[in-house]
Amino acid sequence: MITKTLKVIPLGGLGEIGKNMMVFEYGDDIIIIDCGVLFPGEDMPGVDLVLPDIRYLIENQKKIRAILITHGHEDHIGAIPYVLSQINVPIFAPRLAHGLISVKLKEHSLDKQTELNQIEPGVNYNFGSFGIEFFRVCHSIPDAMGIVIDTPIGKVIHTGDFKIDHTPVDGKPTDLALLARLGSDGVVLLLSDSTYAEIQGYTPSEQVVKEAIFRAIGEAQGRVLIASFASLISRIQHVIEAAVYHDRKITFVGRSMVNNVAMAQEMGYISAPPGTIVSLQEAIKLPSEQLVMMTTGSQGEPTSALVRISNGTHRDISVEIDDTVIISATPIPGNERLVSRTINNLIRKGANVLYDKIALVHVHGHSSQEELKLVLNLVKPRYFVPIHGEYKGLVAHAKLAENTGVDQENIFVLEDGDVLELNGAEAWIAGQVQTGQVFLDGNTTIDMESSTLRERRALSKAGIVLVISMIDGITDRLTGEVEIVGTGFVDSDRLGFVSRKVGPMLSESWDRGDFLVSDLVKTNKKIKRIVSDILYKETGKRPMIVPVILQV
Amino acid sequence: MITKTLKVIPLGGLGEIGKNMMVFEYGDDIIIIDCGVLFPGEDMPGVDLVLPDIRYLIENQKKIRAILITHGHEDHIGAIPYVLSQINVPIFAPRLAHGLISVKLKEHSLDKQTELNQIEPGVNYNFGSFGIEFFRVCHSIPDAMGIVIDTPIGKVIHTGDFKIDHTPVDGKPTDLALLARLGSDGVVLLLSDSTYAEIQGYTPSEQVVKEAIFRAIGEAQGRVLIASFASLISRIQHVIEAAVYHDRKITFVGRSMVNNVAMAQEMGYISAPPGTIVSLQEAIKLPSEQLVMMTTGSQGEPTSALVRISNGTHRDISVEIDDTVIISATPIPGNERLVSRTINNLIRKGANVLYDKIALVHVHGHSSQEELKLVLNLVKPRYFVPIHGEYKGLVAHAKLAENTGVDQENIFVLEDGDVLELNGAEAWIAGQVQTGQVFLDGNTTIDMESSTLRERRALSKAGIVLVISMIDGITDRLTGEVEIVGTGFVDSDRLGFVSRKVGPMLSESWDRGDFLVSDLVKTNKKIKRIVSDILYKETGKRPMIVPVILQV
Repeated sequence: MITKTLKVIPLGGLGEIGKNMMVFEYGDDIIIIDCGVLFPGEDMPGVDLVLPDIRYLIENQKKIRAILITHGHEDHIGAIPYVLSQINVPIFAPRLAHGLISVKLKEHSLDKQTELNQIEPGVNYNFGSFGIEFFRVCHSIPDAMGIVIDTPIGKVIHTGDFKIDHTPVDGKPTDLALLARLGSDGVVLLLSDSTYAEIQGYTPSEQVVKEAIFRAIGEAQGRVLIASFASLISRIQHVIEAAVYHDRKITFVGRSMVNNVAMAQEMGYISAPPGTIVSLQEAIKLPSEQLVMMTTGSQGEPTSALVRISNGTHRDISVEIDDTVIISATPIPGNERLVSRTINNLIRKGANVLYDKIALVHVHGHSSQEELKLVLNLVKPRYFVPIHGEYKGLVAHAKLAENTGVDQENIFVLEDGDVLELNGAEAWIAGQVQTGQVFLDGNTTIDMESSTLRERRALSKAGIVLVISMIDGITDRLTGEVEIVGTGFVDSDRLGFVSRKVGPMLSESWDRGDFLVSDLVKTNKKIKRIVSDILYKETGKRPMIVPVILQV
Repeated sequence: MITKTLKVIPLGGLGEIGKNMMVFEYGDDIIIIDCGVLFPGEDMPGVDLVLPDIRYLIENQKKIRAILITHGHEDHIGAIPYVLSQINVPIFAPRLAHGLISVKLKEHSLDKQTELNQIEPGVNYNFGSFGIEFFRVCHSIPDAMGIVIDTPIGKVIHTGDFKIDHTPVDGKPTDLALLARLGSDGVVLLLSDSTYAEIQGYTPSEQVVKEAIFRAIGEAQGRVLIASFASLISRIQHVIEAAVYHDRKITFVGRSMVNNVAMAQEMGYISAPPGTIVSLQEAIKLPSEQLVMMTTGSQGEPTSALVRISNGTHRDISVEIDDTVIISATPIPGNERLVSRTINNLIRKGANVLYDKIALVHVHGHSSQEELKLVLNLVKPRYFVPIHGEYKGLVAHAKLAENTGVDQENIFVLEDGDVLELNGAEAWIAGQVQTGQVFLDGNTTIDMESSTLRERRALSKAGIVLVISMIDGITDRLTGEVEIVGTGFVDSDRLGFVSRKVGPMLSESWDRGDFLVSDLVKTNKKIKRIVSDILYKETGKRPMIVPVILQV
């Protein structure tokens, strides 16, 4: 007799383990939690998006009952169009995420063929062997959920991304009562957010930022510009309230900010007294002390509204002395220089700039150690799997679990692709499935090992030089000069100078019979070596060299 | 009668204003403080080094009396070979910097022609109108100095990079007594380090790190690996002391670490009881609990010792369970992902890793706000110029100066190239000189506007496609097929597929007479547009397209 087991598999390999996709499998049933993307790093030049490798899902698509979405951030919903173009699965998402996914599906012409359902917390859903209940958590976007999975071997809790905010903007705190109740009934497995598991203490409430923003707007002499994430709806609501309190109007700048506000207002996530929100055209006619502007660009994105304002290249808005600018965000690793440059330029224009280093104008949306320990103590799980973190975050979270009394041998730090199996009595790592990341590059996917990426990296270092020889196929002799074409190598004057050295040298070699059209591989190699050495001697650079031999 | 004035000019444009080069000019005399480089950012692909644009110095080279060096970090000495290859000036540097510069000059074969002098603190040097005295400050390298400049309009103090450490490793604290004495005698101008002027409080003493390292080595079960900067000599000394205290031997790994330790030992900056420092070959034979290894790679540099150890690709060293790894550094902005990846890999191999987020294993070398205010209060300068910071840091420091009682109109936040003039009674910005940054690229220099850089950036996004047509010059007809060569665009199979679509289309156009060799500019433009559109339709990418038309 074969006993069925619960399999738990983080998939995707996008850096933070299990963050973008978690698979739960029992017998012939699979449910998937989240379906996200990452934005490419500097080592992936030209790549548009980083996507999870879903080979395992394609192989097992008959078993898949649903994709469950915890919240509407891109690293949890961004891969949906890509996955749905390969496997057709119903999606279940909380209200706001549902709205954001609808837009995405329309953009990709997948809306007709997709079953997209809106879930409510506290309601039971059934997917084969699995019973599902969503529960509220606090995060940096409204309608964020954790998920209780009722499995044949017991209850499993997946926290989603969360923090514990006792005074959240929308009045909907993390459902600790449910966690406590489930904990006392018995939870077989807890999977919990490890993003900030290395940070001691508590993550401050969004309320702290609200107070800082109220104070800053109250003290401002001129206009107030606030940059934040377009998805940080609660922050936008705070800014609206602060503007109203201080008798200012508010306008929104930047495409994604304007679109998100419109959507959030329509869906009821944002409210403002009539007349408070004005158009940009109305706004620029208002006296400075009556205006708050909220923009995109908190990460220093070169084409964003804030960066164009800081450069003096925005069509409608310029920063003046006495304006106050609040950067209500923290730079995502990799964006520090861009953000600093933006702040410097705004200060150069005379603005009073408030940013994370000098004022508490941002808090993030993940639990620190004390919150994580509280959840561990409430849930008291038999088994624990830290998720949503780099490996070092998972290990830090594992230590917290051990400290709160989870048996060391019941804690599993998984890597993407690892298969954890549980049968109610025991748990073990049963093996690995193939996974990893693939890169969307134009309309196809490539991977990190792709020669295309290697070539792009090489091209970016010293450019490319083409060495074009037109050869009489019968005599193996040049029919003219060797032509040298280069780009990204040296400036054009210098290339001309260098060409006049390289050309005649190669012509001579052809004339001497050193190169043979009959042995192209060897001839190309020779040309590459000769040209590379001369160019290095002349310029100190080794560009990519492409010999082109044309037979006439 | 023309009255002479003191001119103060930050030069270089390397991001932190006045950090890499400051010019002081009075009548026919110029002295320069520091001569540094920066390492290139991601927006400068292929560039080797970022150097100051020294046009102003070349034009005024007859006036230059000396380059004074405050300390031996690359952002203060790295441009010396480049500057000396253009102007010959005597250099005056503290002992350790003197040693480091000697090596540099030899490498660039400039040692024979250069007058390199070692200075001592508390000694007076004369350079035309300027009297100079160096004084000790604490920083993250031994022998760091500030400089007192005695000018005809009064005393000027330049702090160099500094922090106030009351318990420094080498027993040589920042010379506050001198600052106090000068302050009570009257200082006309203070120029002070603004690197950390945005940070409240005090920077902790190096002693704090010493204690953390002693504790970590004491608690370690197996080997201890410590990664730090090779120039952080004081840290290296602490690690040696901790190793000795805990009955361990120590070995150094990584070329720059080994070289720096040898140099520092020879010059007396590092001391160790005989037999404490062992070779790597001896080290790997020792029992784990008797060994400390100190390595490079604290910034996650891909070819460094620590990264190769973390990858399992180091020839001699592998990390084992129970090893302790201490990352005694903070990631420099831009390196966060590389450092995280290294830590993750070390933890995966079972090491216990201590790093900045979870332990106090690093402090930096710059003053925080309380230290800066202390110096302002001791010196009580008439005029104040914040230096060594991004613009936002300078502005933060300017506010501290105002708060400590410097008149607001006597505080000048300068940009690189700004000329501040002082005559003893007044101070004003008199204009600008040309400056900025130039990029060392191979054996030449280019700048940010260079078409070479633009081309490299374009090449890295979608590669390059060459469209080669061989044309009979008389008939304007193709003599064969149009050849398509691409690199960095799409993988080769796909390129073949795409070529088979593009080639015939272009051949047809030639045959129809749409392209004319007699109007190459127009023809090239047409080919680019046609090919770009087809490729975009087929692949979703727009590579750089280079039409090559060869006449037979």
